[in-house]
Amino acid sequence: MKQFNLLIQTPGRGYYLITKEITDAIGDDVGIIDVGLLHVFLKHTSASLTINENADPTVRDDFKNFEEELVRRDFPFTHDYEGPDDCPAHIKSSLFGCELTIPISNGKLALGTWQGVYLCEHRDSTQNRNLLITLNN
Amino acid sequence: MKQFNLLIQTPGRGYYLITKEITDAIGDDVGIIDVGLLHVFLKHTSASLTINENADPTVRDDFKNFEEELVRRDFPFTHDYEGPDDCPAHIKSSLFGCELTIPISNGKLALGTWQGVYLCEHRDSTQNRNLLITLNN
Amino acid sequence: MKQFNLLIQTPGRGYYLITKEITDAIGDDVGIIDVGLLHVFLKHTSASLTINENADPTVRDDFKNFEEELVRRDFPFTHDYEGPDDCPAHIKSSLFGCELTIPISNGKLALGTWQGVYLCEHRDSTQNRNLLITLNN
Repeated sequence: MKQFNLLIQTPGRGYYLITKEITDAIGDDVGIIDVGLLHVFLKHTSASLTINENADPTVRDDFKNFEEELVRRDFPFTHDYEGPDDCPAHIKSSLFGCELTIPISNGKLALGTWQGVYLCEHRDSTQNRNLLITLNN
Repeated sequence: MKQFNLLIQTPGRGYYLITKEITDAIGDDVGIIDVGLLHVFLKHTSASLTINENADPTVRDDFKNFEEELVRRDFPFTHDYEGPDDCPAHIKSSLFGCELTIPISNGKLALGTWQGVYLCEHRDSTQNRNLLITLNN
Repeated sequence: MKQFNLLIQTPGRGYYLITKEITDAIGDDVGIIDVGLLHVFLKHTSASLTINENADPTVRDDFKNFEEELVRRDFPFTHDYEGPDDCPAHIKSSLFGCELTIPISNGKLALGTWQGVYLCEHRDSTQNRNLLITLNN
């Protein structure tokens, strides 16, 4: 196994395709793996990772709009030190999850044709997000 | 590590138990593993995988009914090329997730007594769904 | 790979930090691993595992309150043999998920500063919950 760090700065709330950033981070190491697994871990509790549609950007806009309906800011949360986006961001992070395992086949991530990895930023303001990637072969 | 492909045709929206299809796909290879992990990956963005109750089919009916309340079709989604079930299916896919890791103990999947694997079809119409299974030992 | 069993009794519905219970269960075995993965699996369908904020207990209270809004008991569920918390517990279990993979670096779980593992109990009454932990190195 081998690990790679990846730092991504987000411009605030939204869903961002990071498939290329992940493959760039692991570089040539994946090319020699016939069968393996790639684990991607986000070291934060107010953002998340998910796999979804990699082509039409309106899907990511719809995620951004819908998450505010799914976890409404006007719910009487107690934990609001960092503003009205604080606790909703924690809950969204757990609903989508902060880690993914992706299979590797013939030296490449075995994603489906329409699949890409999203970094989901649930805080309103720009954030630095640290990921730890583990290549398991 | 070893990989197996599995194709499942769904009859449209609903939750389907596929534990047996998975164990059939991996066949005898799991029987010789004392301790291991099985990774199950669905290569699509409008369906998902989850683990839930394997006995009473009304649980799966309740999931099917409740998902329409959780992600309502009348939300003003932009991405609707393929109909009113299009964007809701993407969001449900990310809420449940498209991949699972299941422990293996003594040559068998170490699921709890009541646990089974569901393939969750979020599109209305029949679909062909491709899974890639990785045996990690 | 090596596996460890962990039994945790919950006092009923709520979100409980179990990071220490997990590291105690694996003991000294993790200390000798430079790079690895830890898989944590909950063998139940009415509870779940997630990673979230490890410091302020009001976050866990907010999760407990909000889950009742996310999956309302007054939805017309069919599966209610064990009471009004029965089917909501199944659905919450699948939304948060019953398994997690956590990276290991330099002999320790590589969690972010604010990350801890929650055992999420979705049933009202006290329950015994079995976890199976797999150390993958």
